[in-house]
Amino acid sequence: MGRIEENVLTPPIGKKFRCFIFLQLNFKMDQHSNTILISSDEMQICFENILLKTGFQKKDALQLAKAFTENSVDGVYTHGVNRFPRFIEYVQKGYVKKDALPSLKNKFNGIEQWDGNLGAGILNAVFAAEQSMKLADEYGIGCVALSNTNHWMRGGRYGWQAAKAGYVFIGWTNTIANMPAWNAKDARLGNNPLVIALPYNDDAIVLDMAMSQYSFGAMELSVMKNEKLSVAGGFDNEGNLTNDPAAILASRRPVPIGYWKGAGLSLLLDILAAVLSGGLSTSEISKKEAEYGLSQVFMAININKLPHHSSVPDIIATIIDDYKQSVPQDGASSITYPGERVLKTRKQNLEKGIPVMQEVLDQILKL
Amino acid sequence: MGRIEENVLTPPIGKKFRCFIFLQLNFKMDQHSNTILISSDEMQICFENILLKTGFQKKDALQLAKAFTENSVDGVYTHGVNRFPRFIEYVQKGYVKKDALPSLKNKFNGIEQWDGNLGAGILNAVFAAEQSMKLADEYGIGCVALSNTNHWMRGGRYGWQAAKAGYVFIGWTNTIANMPAWNAKDARLGNNPLVIALPYNDDAIVLDMAMSQYSFGAMELSVMKNEKLSVAGGFDNEGNLTNDPAAILASRRPVPIGYWKGAGLSLLLDILAAVLSGGLSTSEISKKEAEYGLSQVFMAININKLPHHSSVPDIIATIIDDYKQSVPQDGASSITYPGERVLKTRKQNLEKGIPVMQEVLDQILKL
Repeated sequence: MGRIEENVLTPPIGKKFRCFIFLQLNFKMDQHSNTILISSDEMQICFENILLKTGFQKKDALQLAKAFTENSVDGVYTHGVNRFPRFIEYVQKGYVKKDALPSLKNKFNGIEQWDGNLGAGILNAVFAAEQSMKLADEYGIGCVALSNTNHWMRGGRYGWQAAKAGYVFIGWTNTIANMPAWNAKDARLGNNPLVIALPYNDDAIVLDMAMSQYSFGAMELSVMKNEKLSVAGGFDNEGNLTNDPAAILASRRPVPIGYWKGAGLSLLLDILAAVLSGGLSTSEISKKEAEYGLSQVFMAININKLPHHSSVPDIIATIIDDYKQSVPQDGASSITYPGERVLKTRKQNLEKGIPVMQEVLDQILKL
Repeated sequence: MGRIEENVLTPPIGKKFRCFIFLQLNFKMDQHSNTILISSDEMQICFENILLKTGFQKKDALQLAKAFTENSVDGVYTHGVNRFPRFIEYVQKGYVKKDALPSLKNKFNGIEQWDGNLGAGILNAVFAAEQSMKLADEYGIGCVALSNTNHWMRGGRYGWQAAKAGYVFIGWTNTIANMPAWNAKDARLGNNPLVIALPYNDDAIVLDMAMSQYSFGAMELSVMKNEKLSVAGGFDNEGNLTNDPAAILASRRPVPIGYWKGAGLSLLLDILAAVLSGGLSTSEISKKEAEYGLSQVFMAININKLPHHSSVPDIIATIIDDYKQSVPQDGASSITYPGERVLKTRKQNLEKGIPVMQEVLDQILKL
């Protein structure tokens, strides 16, 4: 438990002026793990302060802090609080440009190419999603292809953004190479997350899936917990499929979803991102010293321009109702649609606080 | 070998006027299996004759015969020659309307909704892909959502169609329920094939993937050959993941690609197809006596409208070159991109003839 006693965090001495907001509250320890529960308001303010100190303008600091906080509230800690220190590091190293704004490169009616100018991935992606919706308002369907941007953190965020505004959204990003092609040993493909979202029930259905069966982060967590993966997640060094996360971390051979199928989809998403944006491909990004300068695609459809739009909620509800009538396999948990579990996590984290690992908190307090 | 002797097929007596073209040639037996090799020209003419007899107009008969033949040439027999008898059956039963033409339901700039009026799925899909390209010419990106259509056979065909014409293509169809949701026992999801394509090297890269790891057809073939599947393809009746195709055929529980991920993607593709087209969802189609009245989406992007279009071939070539430099795992065949193997099969089948199984030929000769 280290410095943490019972349900109260004693802040590390000497760090109290670095992230002063964290000092104004009593952190609650999650009783089941080495995590501290932090309210979303406090996380937001702490992030804002660090971002302001790092040199972001007020408006941008607010938006970035909101994204990192909300990603954490939704349970996507890997692209929320856990990732925040690396984001700051990338700003400090100049991979992420603090003052950059996206600039329009080209436009042909419903399709636009924007240069992200290496700005913060979240800011660029929020802008690009918004811009794709504006194009959809005018053309029914709109596509923004964004080059020269940075990690968008949690892709689902832009799905929620568009779906909550009433749009269908399809978007994806390329990444550094982190997954071998099918039948290959060395990583040449990105895990290139794909996001598809649409409005549902005053909220949204949001699919946010990387092309690898498990992220390296998820596998590292399984190793820490001494657990096997629920299904085969990659190959060991002998080329055997395995659900042993340590063996996959050693081989660096995670398996694509659906094996050859997900490998193919990953390749196509990368090609389309590079072709449509005129930006870098996974192979080019992988030559850099760090993952920056990504290519992304944001497509929106304005379903309110379709004459049957008033019946769309019923169409979706009918499908989900049928889906929910699935007969669960013995002992299975309930049948959920993509994004459904987020709602539960969101509610819980807003009520009880966001669980933050002690070591992550330590990193943040050093920023 | 039945009626087949050596390399020459003796046509079944009494059927010679039904498909007379087949009688004008010496069929060559494939020496390695119970198949007959038929040239693409002869297959095309045979199909045309049967389609004309079934009541299709000349133009439509030609186009349908071309599609069923070319799908077979490309090695997609399940949605070519093998499927042709069932297509004729569906026409005879009235599920597929011979004289139907698609009609425009709604339009808002780059997005259009068309009613397929239960016409032949191939004809409707060729039209819808073409129409999406026209919209892309005008708006940069175009989307045609098609309701009330029928099985498009091989989805990749429309990817090739658009990519060979110079466009990026993204399209998908819903299907009858044939795959359980994740954690479920009963089929409520379709395998909803997704197609992504773009031009490459005077040809195309075409991803055509169903959301199930294996089709029922592929699993039936493995049972016939007494082979196991190369990776887990579904669950047995006890709920264990298995690569035994017979056990999966018995349970009717094929596994989605990437398990929960492909299940989610399948659900979203169905919802989008139904929402965008205003047509039927998988759950509604599944209530019918047969699979008809499907919903499909066709999206095209005119990359020639982008100022950097002249560099697009280089962008793609650079990515594929890097991909091809993957280190193959021990004993693995070469690293191929989606659609690459088709080129080889196409060449071989055009040169040597299309292998047709004896029992399929028997069915066709009865039409």
